[in-house]
Amino acid sequence: MRMVDIITKKRDGGTLTEEEIRFFVANYVSGNIPDYQASAWAMAVYFQGMNDSETAALTRAMIDSGECVDLSSINGIKVDKHSTGGVGDTTTLVLAPLVASLGVPVAKMSGRGLGFTGGTLDKLESIPGFHVELPIGTFMNLVKRSGIAVIGQTGDLVPADKKLYALRDVSGSVESIPLIASSIMSKKIAAGADAIVLEVTTGTGAFMKDEASAVRLAETMVRIGTQVGRRTMAVITDMSQPLGFAIGNALEIKEAIDTLRDAGPSDLKELVLTLGSLMVCAAGKADDPASARHLLLESIESGRAFSKFRSFIADQGGDVSFVDHPEKLPQAAHQIDFLAPKSGFITGLAADQIGLAAMLLGAGRAMKTSTIDYAAGIVLHKKIGDTVKQGEPILTLHTNQNNGEAVREKLHAAVKIGEQAAAHRLIHRIIEE
Amino acid sequence: MRMVDIITKKRDGGTLTEEEIRFFVANYVSGNIPDYQASAWAMAVYFQGMNDSETAALTRAMIDSGECVDLSSINGIKVDKHSTGGVGDTTTLVLAPLVASLGVPVAKMSGRGLGFTGGTLDKLESIPGFHVELPIGTFMNLVKRSGIAVIGQTGDLVPADKKLYALRDVSGSVESIPLIASSIMSKKIAAGADAIVLEVTTGTGAFMKDEASAVRLAETMVRIGTQVGRRTMAVITDMSQPLGFAIGNALEIKEAIDTLRDAGPSDLKELVLTLGSLMVCAAGKADDPASARHLLLESIESGRAFSKFRSFIADQGGDVSFVDHPEKLPQAAHQIDFLAPKSGFITGLAADQIGLAAMLLGAGRAMKTSTIDYAAGIVLHKKIGDTVKQGEPILTLHTNQNNGEAVREKLHAAVKIGEQAAAHRLIHRIIEE
Repeated sequence: MRMVDIITKKRDGGTLTEEEIRFFVANYVSGNIPDYQASAWAMAVYFQGMNDSETAALTRAMIDSGECVDLSSINGIKVDKHSTGGVGDTTTLVLAPLVASLGVPVAKMSGRGLGFTGGTLDKLESIPGFHVELPIGTFMNLVKRSGIAVIGQTGDLVPADKKLYALRDVSGSVESIPLIASSIMSKKIAAGADAIVLEVTTGTGAFMKDEASAVRLAETMVRIGTQVGRRTMAVITDMSQPLGFAIGNALEIKEAIDTLRDAGPSDLKELVLTLGSLMVCAAGKADDPASARHLLLESIESGRAFSKFRSFIADQGGDVSFVDHPEKLPQAAHQIDFLAPKSGFITGLAADQIGLAAMLLGAGRAMKTSTIDYAAGIVLHKKIGDTVKQGEPILTLHTNQNNGEAVREKLHAAVKIGEQAAAHRLIHRIIEE
Repeated sequence: MRMVDIITKKRDGGTLTEEEIRFFVANYVSGNIPDYQASAWAMAVYFQGMNDSETAALTRAMIDSGECVDLSSINGIKVDKHSTGGVGDTTTLVLAPLVASLGVPVAKMSGRGLGFTGGTLDKLESIPGFHVELPIGTFMNLVKRSGIAVIGQTGDLVPADKKLYALRDVSGSVESIPLIASSIMSKKIAAGADAIVLEVTTGTGAFMKDEASAVRLAETMVRIGTQVGRRTMAVITDMSQPLGFAIGNALEIKEAIDTLRDAGPSDLKELVLTLGSLMVCAAGKADDPASARHLLLESIESGRAFSKFRSFIADQGGDVSFVDHPEKLPQAAHQIDFLAPKSGFITGLAADQIGLAAMLLGAGRAMKTSTIDYAAGIVLHKKIGDTVKQGEPILTLHTNQNNGEAVREKLHAAVKIGEQAAAHRLIHRIIEE
């Protein structure tokens, strides 16, 4: 078997066999197949696509390229959640303790932020003392004892994806649905999930700018899950404006606490309830989404969800006084309001530009090696559909740098005010096999 | 400027600027752009193509990546000829001395054979004493004095093409018309040609299997020539059967001598006259192809063309007694006839399979490092359209190896005999700007 023949077969629209895909993945990881063949193959896949069998075979081959986390010693159905990314996406911070409070085991590996997208690990680290790098044994014991733990990716999970993604990133083949789908699913499955609930975002702040692509990605991932025996569901959500009000690490921790105390933004709550219902059902803790939703609401209202969050933070070394008194969290020296230039309805709050602005203020990373200012970020006061009066603050910039005024100027293009209320719907649809 | 953006722009169907193309070529040759980006770019070009401006810019950038041969000290219009390759392609051996005999300066750099395609240098070296590696000064002086010299590629011509072609060969993007066209044209232009006559072959024995692709390649090369100020013409020819009767190095030298003595195969003579007429006109030695053809025929009939071949061989150290007595050329120990299994018309002589058979007999190289047996090869006795009687020899295998019988068995699929005469036309058309 020769890699050049595999590239040519795909280039000419052929269907690769499982054997050919395994040959590529195994030899690419071992270094026998060079980067220049892998990048040409990925570009051919970009143009010719892959069918469901090929995509599932690629996912399996990538999983087999490294270690897998064995969660079988943890009782119950382990349900993982993944989002394709957004701006101000506080979901995991609320959702993880919320479903854990209903006995759904949460053994979660999260990531860090890059570009305009934040990362759950960074947000958690804005609470002094919180550790995201735990030995796998400690992680497992925490889940067994408390039902929840969140750490950074550990061990040698899916090395094929690490190598291939880094290559695609510099050779122009990131935007391929079968490659994105197999990349995400291989990591979720290797991390030990029995069932997977996906949030596939769409709009300016998402990787998939249009709904059709988001749906295709979601369907592809759901079919991969089915083919490899993992129950998988996807929710298509709108990320044309940031989620909730807060963008920034400590700001989002505070918003998560507010939401767990039932005093958070309504869109964030709705998303958490939608995703949570699917997770609770997949874990067998409720028979249908409606009763799951009822259980989730009850847990929020009774304080059980907040209490689970508090103990989760304490378990991983976080100082709970910051949870009880979120005003102790890092605060930025400068707060700069962005005022409405005219009266009307908010019709646009471009999530990518607002996310980028938050990054420039210090809340995110321009490069993997950038450091983060936990206090920095943006707080929205208005969302799409709201009315606004000229001179009223639409959002506030939080920064310790001197670039606040410059960043505010950049936001003029991101904020749109019109004469008619724009329709906006957060949850577009749910996709199941 | 970032290479990943250039790849993405081409992937998305954009038109690259001359600046972007120069950035890629210069940095790829210098090693600043890695192979994995170049191979992804080439695959994107495979799918999205390049327009005339891009293809001409790529050709110019590749030429500028290395040295150029300066033929300006040689009087007259230097016309080069290139063929996209065939089987039994004795053309250059006849054409070069023929046009030189009419005062068209021939300063030719030729190549070696690989796979089922032979190379002019190998054929010439079957004449004892003939040198193909001459210093550039000696080469120039020969052309000035005798009007003809043929050597191997010298100096550092078009290093970008060498590097990019080797990469495309192992990463599945050889079959891209703009990349093939710029590869061929950059080498011809860097070798100093003022005008270029191209033979673009089509059919089983050619790189371009179908006529439409051959025409597109020819048109692309003619437009590149025009854009870079070199008069360029192309002849589309049929290579579904071998050219002439002989395949093999010494066998083709003998056939070239026969043709120069006006006793060679009619198809080879016709091709030489067609290409030669274009070259003579491009060199300003005749006003139109008809009068050029008349001059060429006269040169063959008068013996001037043969005399030029003889002095050319002598000038480069070849023993002319082998030209005068071609029976002295290496002869194979075994001659094995392939007999017609039935009577009828020859309807197919698959050039690629016959070329491959000749290679297996020792006439060609399976790999660049293989050695050649000058005596080995195949002589056809019949061509498409001829009648044949059962048991009559269709071709004869010449070999010094013991695989003659095995190779003969492989030829059954290559030879087709039918009940009706198949139409066959060597010269399909001529393409000029």
